Amino acid sequence: MNTKVGNLIYKGKAKDVYETEDDQKVIVKFRDDITAGDGAKKESLSEKGFYNSIISSKFFEVLEEAGVKTQYIELLEPSYMLSKKLEMIPLEVITRNIAAGSLLKRFPFEEKQEFEPPIIQIDYKNDEFHDPMLNEDIIIALGLATAEDLATIREITLKINSIVKNFLKERGILFPDFKIEFGRDSEGNIVLGDEISPDTCRFWDMKTWDVLDKDLFRKGESGVMDAYKTVASRILDEEDKKKWNLNI
Amino acid sequence: MNTKVGNLIYKGKAKDVYETEDDQKVIVKFRDDITAGDGAKKESLSEKGFYNSIISSKFFEVLEEAGVKTQYIELLEPSYMLSKKLEMIPLEVITRNIAAGSLLKRFPFEEKQEFEPPIIQIDYKNDEFHDPMLNEDIIIALGLATAEDLATIREITLKINSIVKNFLKERGILFPDFKIEFGRDSEGNIVLGDEISPDTCRFWDMKTWDVLDKDLFRKGESGVMDAYKTVASRILDEEDKKKWNLNI
Ligand SMILES: Nc1ncnc2c1ncn2[C@@H]1O[C@H](COP(=O)(O)OP(=O)(O)OP(=O)(O)O)[C@@H](O)[C@H]1O
Ligand SMILES: Nc1ncnc2c1ncn2[C@@H]1O[C@H](COP(=O)(O)OP(=O)(O)OP(=O)(O)O)[C@@H](O)[C@H]1O
Ligand SMILES: [Mg+2]
Ligand SMILES: [Mg+2]
Repeated sequence: MNTKVGNLIYKGKAKDVYETEDDQKVIVKFRDDITAGDGAKKESLSEKGFYNSIISSKFFEVLEEAGVKTQYIELLEPSYMLSKKLEMIPLEVITRNIAAGSLLKRFPFEEKQEFEPPIIQIDYKNDEFHDPMLNEDIIIALGLATAEDLATIREITLKINSIVKNFLKERGILFPDFKIEFGRDSEGNIVLGDEISPDTCRFWDMKTWDVLDKDLFRKGESGVMDAYKTVASRILDEEDKKKWNLNI
Repeated sequence: MNTKVGNLIYKGKAKDVYETEDDQKVIVKFRDDITAGDGAKKESLSEKGFYNSIISSKFFEVLEEAGVKTQYIELLEPSYMLSKKLEMIPLEVITRNIAAGSLLKRFPFEEKQEFEPPIIQIDYKNDEFHDPMLNEDIIIALGLATAEDLATIREITLKINSIVKNFLKERGILFPDFKIEFGRDSEGNIVLGDEISPDTCRFWDMKTWDVLDKDLFRKGESGVMDAYKTVASRILDEEDKKKWNLNI
């Protein structure tokens, strides 16, 4: 790796953010830590950071090619993603194509009910208040984003959903829901940040409906890493696999 | 009372709804029952139904005069409000001008922080799911209202807020927040239903900041009925008071 890893700016639950010599760039380091239930359940899962960084990079590349602005610059080596430094907006933007998870506990939807158009739900990234769901008026009153920002976020999010959903469909994977985060780059543009991985998405095998994401960990099931590797194997092409010496 | 009270259609926590001889009209009967905390706390408060029906009628009259469509036809006698029969939309439309109550527990607002424009929050009237907060996408996906309905509800709600807020201001009362419900009349119009009273609003004395609403009951304080009577006394004119023989 040629780029020098600078000071640690932020240590999250599953990733670290490091400075680089360029003050507009950071390294997002994907760790093996995996958590669930508002941080209550916490373990280390060997190779998770490695694979999630590769999976995330692939999605960012696909999105960039389709014209979506992301933080992604380059995967320096597995686990180390060189990224645009963003001023993060503390919102978790959740998109739901199929009813699953907490949505079913909170509202009377049918399990596996499809949403067309998808549902967008925005939670406040705030540990003290346990990431409460917001609405537009509350977001604006809290000063987290303007009505215009929210319209932009919504538009980009729907575009990301349709690009990734179609990409996954061709690879035999359903895309029930996912969580993304946005930030502002140095020019003030709203840009996709953070990650898109089995930690932050639901992925289901299209034929068997097998779960291929963090829900396996949440439910204490085995084969978590195998599922993540299955996702990597399906979405990466031969060139990607060769580049990182993957035997999947 | 000339109008005949027909069969009971619905018995709520604080009001009954009765049929009348006209199948497009109902009688909303205001009872003395008062509840709080998702129904956990429950008492009877002598004269509450009497005063709430008069207070609610007054607000509906003020709104009708300002061009807002409401259920209100006539207060037959205290406690008995002759109303348009509505097909209720199971949404609790909450408007907030000043931060108070559950909002402060859920989000990091300052106590008594003012909202300009006001915040509108829409909860799902659903006991089984404990009235969860919704967003527009979820409301539409649940089939509770269309995007067009929501725009109408929002527009009417903001109008109601500004009319009632100004009316109260002239009478020395602050209007921190309130909850209303809408229904559809026989022609499909979205019409204000239910009630507007100290059970469903926050009212604060403009000078002393004294609480003049159900929060006194929620907190187990005394003088609940006195507070409700203070509201009645401030908003009713001499003619109203004479009509119902009020000594307040
Ligand atoms: N391009 C970026 N520039 C600056 N910060 C970023 C960028 N992308 C992501 N971040 C931030 O880096 C942090 C990554 O932390 P991580 O995801 O491990 O944990 P967390 O978000 O604090 O907790 P959790 O994800 O479990 O809710 C987050 O705060 C995220 O908002
Ligand atoms: N004009 C109307 N036509 C038909 N039904 C109405 C009309 N106005 C109000 N209602 C309904 O009458 C019922 C009044 O019940 P009430 O307010 O006592 O209890 P609740 O709403 O069931 O419980 P809570 O108010 O404590 O949440 C509500 O279901 C309300 O939606
Ligand atoms: Mg995170
Ligand atoms: Mg009610």
